[in-house]
Amino acid sequence: MMHFASEKLIQTKYMLHVRIKLGDKETAMSVIEMLTKRGKRVDDFLLKMLKIGASSELYEMVKHQIASGGKRVRPAMTMLCCEAVGGSDEAAIPAAAGIELIHNYSLIFDDVIDRSDLRRGLPTLRAVYGDVMAFLAGMHYREAIFEAARRSVKPRRIEKLFSWTIRKIIEGERLDVLYEQGGRDSEYIKKMRFKHISEDDYRRMIEAKTAVLFEAACKAGGMVGDGKAPEIHGLSRYGWNCGVAFQMKDDILDIVGETEQLGKPTGKDIEEHKLGNIVVLNSLEELSQPERDKVLQTLMSQGISDSAMSDIMKLILSTKAVGRAYEKTKFLVQRAKMSLDVLPPSEAKRTLLSLADFIIRRPF
Amino acid sequence: MMHFASEKLIQTKYMLHVRIKLGDKETAMSVIEMLTKRGKRVDDFLLKMLKIGASSELYEMVKHQIASGGKRVRPAMTMLCCEAVGGSDEAAIPAAAGIELIHNYSLIFDDVIDRSDLRRGLPTLRAVYGDVMAFLAGMHYREAIFEAARRSVKPRRIEKLFSWTIRKIIEGERLDVLYEQGGRDSEYIKKMRFKHISEDDYRRMIEAKTAVLFEAACKAGGMVGDGKAPEIHGLSRYGWNCGVAFQMKDDILDIVGETEQLGKPTGKDIEEHKLGNIVVLNSLEELSQPERDKVLQTLMSQGISDSAMSDIMKLILSTKAVGRAYEKTKFLVQRAKMSLDVLPPSEAKRTLLSLADFIIRRPF
Repeated sequence: MMHFASEKLIQTKYMLHVRIKLGDKETAMSVIEMLTKRGKRVDDFLLKMLKIGASSELYEMVKHQIASGGKRVRPAMTMLCCEAVGGSDEAAIPAAAGIELIHNYSLIFDDVIDRSDLRRGLPTLRAVYGDVMAFLAGMHYREAIFEAARRSVKPRRIEKLFSWTIRKIIEGERLDVLYEQGGRDSEYIKKMRFKHISEDDYRRMIEAKTAVLFEAACKAGGMVGDGKAPEIHGLSRYGWNCGVAFQMKDDILDIVGETEQLGKPTGKDIEEHKLGNIVVLNSLEELSQPERDKVLQTLMSQGISDSAMSDIMKLILSTKAVGRAYEKTKFLVQRAKMSLDVLPPSEAKRTLLSLADFIIRRPF
Repeated sequence: MMHFASEKLIQTKYMLHVRIKLGDKETAMSVIEMLTKRGKRVDDFLLKMLKIGASSELYEMVKHQIASGGKRVRPAMTMLCCEAVGGSDEAAIPAAAGIELIHNYSLIFDDVIDRSDLRRGLPTLRAVYGDVMAFLAGMHYREAIFEAARRSVKPRRIEKLFSWTIRKIIEGERLDVLYEQGGRDSEYIKKMRFKHISEDDYRRMIEAKTAVLFEAACKAGGMVGDGKAPEIHGLSRYGWNCGVAFQMKDDILDIVGETEQLGKPTGKDIEEHKLGNIVVLNSLEELSQPERDKVLQTLMSQGISDSAMSDIMKLILSTKAVGRAYEKTKFLVQRAKMSLDVLPPSEAKRTLLSLADFIIRRPF
């Protein structure tokens, strides 16, 4: 379902869009080109990992997830971090592929959990093959992750890092579900659901759900590139801060993004009853009690009408929530860039600096 | 839903039961005692693995699966195989725990896929916590498997064996679903469903779904016990044959078992539209065309009535299918035992021989 915004909403979106894009169009394009170029090299390898022990029917399913695109931000980070500590980008491919596989592993289950039929403008694995086949494909991804890790430089450390990361993502996903305000039949979830979410709660969730994978991407790059301990630490901090910023930017885009560029309608978090969106959370602080009740009531209800969605969006955009969230992402990206001070100058380091900016300036 | 059998059915069940149990009661009891004793030692370790990186809420969920029991046949096999090649049972604990974790990992997803609310007489994880939490718990199991493997003797070989095994189980599960004759909404499954299943197809499915895990349990035991190549090969064959027999015995019990002892109603495979049951498959060969059509029609239909179930059971039991399936399990167990010829005499070897018998004589 797509929601049509009011005049005022469109105007606000437009202004924000212009502000974000101003002067960055060229940078954004070159960053996307760079990601695509590296992504292709990782894709070949990760498809090989997915093919191991897969029947032709299963392989077709697991390939669908990869074929549906993605920006390949995370594996590009692994390769760049490896180069930034003096390693070859070639050496980073298995670990980078593992990171992208972890990302897709989590997406497959995330789409089943959220009943999402569309991602990146294309039907999800579950939409094409059904939930049952999606589970099985998802489980197969975990084995491909293992295959990538064991082919990596320093396999045992990479395997351990990957497993730790996956465990965190599971915890993040668990909290994400418990932060929802409706839409679940399970008695357990209804009982355990968070009625109130502080910004600390929110951070705990997105750090686990999103930031740890960015952190792992960069740490893995530093590890396979044989970086020194302080370099790996710096790269980890860079990845972690980028990851938190990335999720907040995702939250912002869910409210003010362009449907065509996102490949999915805006307001999806609200439709999915998610209170764990920084813009929604920040707006609640500024709204009056009756307005706050209205937002929470809408989050709890099933099948939100276009006009109800438009009302909620208007309320949220009447606050400074988008701007405040954007300021937070800027601060995080600043910190991410500073974490790279420990590294000697290099082409890779320069690209990492641009990539950090791209993460919050991207229009999708 | 429980189905009440006709007079004749009860009589047949009773006779079969007596035949299987005759003179084995003592053996069965001592085997169960032995399994329980070893199981306890593995349980402590596997709970430790499950606790790693789990929030207290998640740990409660993942523990539920283990607390609901199970005979611990597979980990006991790992320990016995380790001892049979001269290793200490202590050395086998991490690998044995990993095997039991793999088993439970597959059960969690299996219960979600089959929408099962009852297992071993107790509510399943999904029944208590809902499907979403069951996925997340399931995913966490995979990480506990990794933790067990990396703490094992020969960690890299064990990790590889575990991953290979899990991939096979996924394939077995995929076939199991595609062998069903109804009960799925997915267009993909409806299109890909097998209309006819040969005994070869059946074997392909149960070998992947069940036998490879028994094979892995025994192989892992041989590996961590530092067995010679021919010994490990013999143990693998033993495990594999026991595994095929185990699944066929499961199929038999689903038709003629005792609900109270099974902890689940009989006829569950039929209710779940599963054509992949050796007794059902064998009976089809003997039935007339109209009878065959009736069985297949029932397998396709939703919500089978007690009288329809009773009719089908009568038809199946009018053939020699149960007896033929039982003969096959006897042959497999014979082969399993012969595979142990390569091993020197020992207490562990003797127990493995009893265990093979127990697998097909067990009343649950």
